[in-house]
Amino acid sequence: MTKQQLFENILRKKSFLCVGLDTDVTKISEHLFDETDDPIFEFNKAIIDATADLCVAYKPNLAFYESLGLEGWDVLERTAEYIRANYPDLFIIADAKRGDIGNTSAMYAHTFFENMDFDAVTVAPYMGEDSVAPFLTYEGKWAIVLALTSNKGAFDFQIMRDGENGEQLFEKVLKTSQKWGNSENMMYVVGATKAEMLREVRKIVPNHFLLVPGVGAQGGSLQEVAENGLNSECGLLVNSSRQIIYASSEADFAEAARTEAEKVQQEMESLLECCVSDD
Amino acid sequence: MTKQQLFENILRKKSFLCVGLDTDVTKISEHLFDETDDPIFEFNKAIIDATADLCVAYKPNLAFYESLGLEGWDVLERTAEYIRANYPDLFIIADAKRGDIGNTSAMYAHTFFENMDFDAVTVAPYMGEDSVAPFLTYEGKWAIVLALTSNKGAFDFQIMRDGENGEQLFEKVLKTSQKWGNSENMMYVVGATKAEMLREVRKIVPNHFLLVPGVGAQGGSLQEVAENGLNSECGLLVNSSRQIIYASSEADFAEAARTEAEKVQQEMESLLECCVSDD
Repeated sequence: MTKQQLFENILRKKSFLCVGLDTDVTKISEHLFDETDDPIFEFNKAIIDATADLCVAYKPNLAFYESLGLEGWDVLERTAEYIRANYPDLFIIADAKRGDIGNTSAMYAHTFFENMDFDAVTVAPYMGEDSVAPFLTYEGKWAIVLALTSNKGAFDFQIMRDGENGEQLFEKVLKTSQKWGNSENMMYVVGATKAEMLREVRKIVPNHFLLVPGVGAQGGSLQEVAENGLNSECGLLVNSSRQIIYASSEADFAEAARTEAEKVQQEMESLLECCVSDD
Repeated sequence: MTKQQLFENILRKKSFLCVGLDTDVTKISEHLFDETDDPIFEFNKAIIDATADLCVAYKPNLAFYESLGLEGWDVLERTAEYIRANYPDLFIIADAKRGDIGNTSAMYAHTFFENMDFDAVTVAPYMGEDSVAPFLTYEGKWAIVLALTSNKGAFDFQIMRDGENGEQLFEKVLKTSQKWGNSENMMYVVGATKAEMLREVRKIVPNHFLLVPGVGAQGGSLQEVAENGLNSECGLLVNSSRQIIYASSEADFAEAARTEAEKVQQEMESLLECCVSDD
């Protein structure tokens, strides 16, 4: 998907919501286990059918699928296929935090972009250019590079200041990676729990999309994120996982997920009205 | 496996070789596809049977298995099981470069340490303490944290100097992570292509095992690595992948792998004699 197509979807749907499919076998509605042989996929399918008109992206977190072994990997593949087949305007992110030497990153890119048809993969930048570049060679596909994450450990290394120019590590990642790709094939992860730092990020990458986790359960405010992060092409995908997909643990889980997603979409609609024009 | 057990295996086998199982479906001997329905597993099995007495560790690279989808994940599981069942003194490393927020890293740890019985997982440190800590909570299991990698991109961020104390990022990773674990549950990846920097690493972490990739195909010298990295408990696992497992692309691939592994083991034996005493 191109940046322009993503922006058009955002305008049409009045939403920049990404729903995180962190599907946890211990948290999904028990009735699924009684009623179907394929409870994890059926959970995902129900969540997707209930929310696809309210969001522009889905983000399966690989750890949750890998933890289920072969069955999990199979559900991951079928979930991506299901979204692609039924909701072709949805942007699908493999939240995999991959990154290795060049030939190995190329294999990961092959896995997520060719074997499966993900639009984007999250990538850790610690190993530098050749660990990210293989994800940038596919037309219409994206690397989403970790810059400033939403967890406590983000402060261990990401804010270390360079002795030469005072840049913090996450700023150096943003600047250096500009040489590897552009705003048509790279996005950045920037945590919502540091909304005021989004303004700094926006100065360095005015035109890139940012994937913002940490709104909702992790405590970030959507309004603050929008104030500091929106650009003229929206430029934000804000992720919500637990708050939406586990809104209810009963049989009405999909309906409850829709209600939560609607709330977020409506807030996004009003934020988009103030800040982004479709002229 | 404890550090003491690993050291005893090294002394008994006179080897600190780790064989990288980067099994590439495009590179394995063609006759396997004619003679078996399970060529990737049979390749691994033949390599393991031919080298298990010459090495102390195996390191499957996850990217190679994931790129084969369900079949690859299945081969990965069976390979780890095969090693555990037949060669219980072998240390098994999932070269996965994982690392995410705490609850997600905990899921990865569950996958590799509980669902599968790996001894260690490689972990990228960009997201800090809570991304690594979940791998440190399993008795006898290890996190192998990236410090200074062997690829070109290592120089993009890993050698950035802290304005406060002049420490390079990889040094800060070594020092900071000392607070998270110890030499009984943490190792570090330090590339062999930077052997002179190993001495600096060794000063910071005198007692930790280092996993050293990049010897052989990537150009590092084993002797230099030993001179700069050995400690009184060996403290090194040196990985070789392509040089051993693709020593021949014909039907004699396992024999050829053994011959290459023997050469490395013999060099290691003499290096261990100079430097490490078993008194």
